[in-house]
Amino acid sequence: MRARVYVTRKQGVLDPQGKAIEHSLHALGYAEANEVRLGKFIELALDESDAERARARVDEMCRRLLANGVIEDYRFEIE
Amino acid sequence: MRARVYVTRKQGVLDPQGKAIEHSLHALGYAEANEVRLGKFIELALDESDAERARARVDEMCRRLLANGVIEDYRFEIE
Repeated sequence: MRARVYVTRKQGVLDPQGKAIEHSLHALGYAEANEVRLGKFIELALDESDAERARARVDEMCRRLLANGVIEDYRFEIE
Repeated sequence: MRARVYVTRKQGVLDPQGKAIEHSLHALGYAEANEVRLGKFIELALDESDAERARARVDEMCRRLLANGVIEDYRFEIE
């Protein structure tokens, strides 16, 4: 199975990299872009055939390593 | 409208950060995880009501700023 994990900053947590991208987009003429947020996207393969177990393991990986629960949210897909 | 952009390294391009995450996952006991790749996930709001035009603009933003076409692939969703 494969997992796709999306890690984003929690609402209200400053995102200076997102702001930098937003400024660059404006400088390039894309005035319509705003509220830019930068997150992480992690893809992994799993030696696991049971979707329920894969889901539980990936959730644990997110809590223990992939996301920082204090400032980040995460969601993932298993397929 | 909102856009979600996913930027990943092209197949064959080394991904040392993905490798580092993979090693950490193994060290934590997640031996089932492999082929870990780290990418970027960019969310943005667009002052644009026409989906077709939004799509064209975001594609241009990706090519000009958000992704490095030499080593990265991108895909995006507009909604």
